[in-house]
Amino acid sequence: MKLAKYENNELIIEDKSIASLAKTYPTPFYLYSEKELLNNYHIFYNAAVDQGINKPLVCFALKANPNPTLLLSLFRAGAGADIVSGGELQRALENGCDPQKIVFSGVGKTKKEIEAALDCHPQGIYSFNVESIEELEMINACAKEQNKLARVCLRLNPQVKAKTHKHISTGYKTHKFGILKDDILKIFKNKKKFSHINFVGISVHIGSQLTNFKATKKAVKELCSLINETNHKFEFLDVGGGLGVDYTKSDEVPTANDYMKEVYSTIKKQLASDNQDARVVFEPGRFIAASAGLFITQVIRTKKSEDCFFAIVDGGMNDFVRTSLYGAYHEINPIVKKKGKKIPAEIVGPICETSDSFASHYKIQKLHTGDLLAVMDAGAYGHSMSSHYNLRTRPKEIVLTCEGEEKLFTYE
Amino acid sequence: MKLAKYENNELIIEDKSIASLAKTYPTPFYLYSEKELLNNYHIFYNAAVDQGINKPLVCFALKANPNPTLLLSLFRAGAGADIVSGGELQRALENGCDPQKIVFSGVGKTKKEIEAALDCHPQGIYSFNVESIEELEMINACAKEQNKLARVCLRLNPQVKAKTHKHISTGYKTHKFGILKDDILKIFKNKKKFSHINFVGISVHIGSQLTNFKATKKAVKELCSLINETNHKFEFLDVGGGLGVDYTKSDEVPTANDYMKEVYSTIKKQLASDNQDARVVFEPGRFIAASAGLFITQVIRTKKSEDCFFAIVDGGMNDFVRTSLYGAYHEINPIVKKKGKKIPAEIVGPICETSDSFASHYKIQKLHTGDLLAVMDAGAYGHSMSSHYNLRTRPKEIVLTCEGEEKLFTYE
Repeated sequence: MKLAKYENNELIIEDKSIASLAKTYPTPFYLYSEKELLNNYHIFYNAAVDQGINKPLVCFALKANPNPTLLLSLFRAGAGADIVSGGELQRALENGCDPQKIVFSGVGKTKKEIEAALDCHPQGIYSFNVESIEELEMINACAKEQNKLARVCLRLNPQVKAKTHKHISTGYKTHKFGILKDDILKIFKNKKKFSHINFVGISVHIGSQLTNFKATKKAVKELCSLINETNHKFEFLDVGGGLGVDYTKSDEVPTANDYMKEVYSTIKKQLASDNQDARVVFEPGRFIAASAGLFITQVIRTKKSEDCFFAIVDGGMNDFVRTSLYGAYHEINPIVKKKGKKIPAEIVGPICETSDSFASHYKIQKLHTGDLLAVMDAGAYGHSMSSHYNLRTRPKEIVLTCEGEEKLFTYE
Repeated sequence: MKLAKYENNELIIEDKSIASLAKTYPTPFYLYSEKELLNNYHIFYNAAVDQGINKPLVCFALKANPNPTLLLSLFRAGAGADIVSGGELQRALENGCDPQKIVFSGVGKTKKEIEAALDCHPQGIYSFNVESIEELEMINACAKEQNKLARVCLRLNPQVKAKTHKHISTGYKTHKFGILKDDILKIFKNKKKFSHINFVGISVHIGSQLTNFKATKKAVKELCSLINETNHKFEFLDVGGGLGVDYTKSDEVPTANDYMKEVYSTIKKQLASDNQDARVVFEPGRFIAASAGLFITQVIRTKKSEDCFFAIVDGGMNDFVRTSLYGAYHEINPIVKKKGKKIPAEIVGPICETSDSFASHYKIQKLHTGDLLAVMDAGAYGHSMSSHYNLRTRPKEIVLTCEGEEKLFTYE
């Protein structure tokens, strides 16, 4: 719990009382700290530099949190953008991202999206991270039409199984992502066929929320071995994202430094000398945004059902779906700490589904109607996945800026 | 596949070519048939009447599909509304629902929502389906303020485990829904405490997508036994929703007639004579809406990854989440049928998550880029659960009206 701390038994964030904020802004809402976000970015970037990684480019994965104020801030600090749709391209550009720091990932880029990405800058975007041969052909055709050379990075499917949730593990051959090694080698043999493609990079990404590096190391090793076999000079290699976040506060999650050390040593050891000066691109989302956000919700009702105690809150799975969709664990803290024994509670939302639950058998102080709660580490894949289910409005977002201002975002 | 059929190897819906519609309206989109929806409503309602059920009131569960044109049509046909939020209350009223046919379910009704429901008609809504004692107290207080008698139905938690997906099973004591029998009996003993409550009904709902009636029968039996013990004269009993839909076309799913027969015979047998004339309220959503909708999507890319064949479509889990969230099965049909062997395909969306999949190892004709597909039975919990994840726009909805018109709905 870096972001918020208790003072006189009240949870505060950057000297602001969350209870007071909840008087100004009705719950439920997301509360972000620009300072914490930037801090995470710098930790990540500096870890790369400190470990000796060459000209690191940190492209923030917009899907984790595309809040405009937060993006503006990250781009000003030097971050690039990892985007996966035309909507994310537009959002990145609107908030000042340099097109030459944008990488476009995803298996289903449409012609329109490819055209927009080529069109946004004389050289187009920094890189299309290409996931199939058919996509490569489409990008080549689009670039030809615009009389440009499209900068392309082929994404390797390393056939590595990452130890993470099956929904967010992406590096195995039965997954839809990336191209198998043999198919990439075939592309390089037929390079001339792709007259309007500039093969600038190679990438790999094996999943999100990784908490050990065995699979990462293996994937980067596969990447290096592929690069060596191509006999091609690359501008960069992209090692994807996926560094885990310590949701459970178990201290078992490795640090950015540990991660960079592994990446660096693997590259140093495995990569042939002609590509040792390639820059390294990263695509973190969760690591930068998760701990920078809280989801603030209020108990609107309590209920006993025999020995089950329910605290029904005003936030639902439409606002924050991670606990329902992935069974994810998030620490939940009362805004005002009270003395007394902790008891197991079912912390549930108002949506008419049993899965609409934030925590089950969660040991917490006795809760009462009106109590405010903070769902911790909710800055990534929180608001970005929210919906209107049950015809509810999407939750507000409040950014606490480095200047101590509160910036409010509301949605229909 | 009642709704759409093949003519000259082309999938048509009410004599309209889906391929032509997809030229007018870019994919992905939902395509609804008003006729099919009304037909399902009448099947359900008539089954109740035919089996001898007393003055049945069929309240459509808006959470399944709150499309305005479809609602207008159902309300005109005589349906009521089962709502779970202030947003759904507003949507029902805007589309002509009689407030005296609205039941308000859900464990987390806010004060504001309760006030709005009381305020919308001199007698308020038909019924608040109350899920806890604390809620009952709040409704009593709100009614007192408005100087009204709130019509209330207590929801029994029957402690019955339904055989369905754990996310949508709702009738067990560890679930957040309903009130235990003993607690309801206590409320009736202290009726006088609730000066502004008119106890008009009792309800039970054990979950959605039920495909056998053992649990239903048990739950209705529990409901009757409770009613008998209260010695109270009720206007109605509400048996909830949950009748299953035959997603797999296995013919193992019981019909509305089978369902009504069970409900009727259980009530006849179990209920004391003084409440035999109570009307019966139903809350179906899925049964009415599911088969009335298709999700139309286009293959934007194909890909071979060793022995895996991927068809990447332009619809994603943000558009239709049931297959990702619940692992639900939906039949998928090509709009243009071609000859040749069926092969197993991974039909996946463009979202950067492995869970973004519509079907795995799905035997279908060889698919090519540009092919249109129809995800069948997508009319319930389809668009209503859609989101902006990956900054994608929400899918359009097109209603084919009984008059042969096309009504388009788009969302930001």
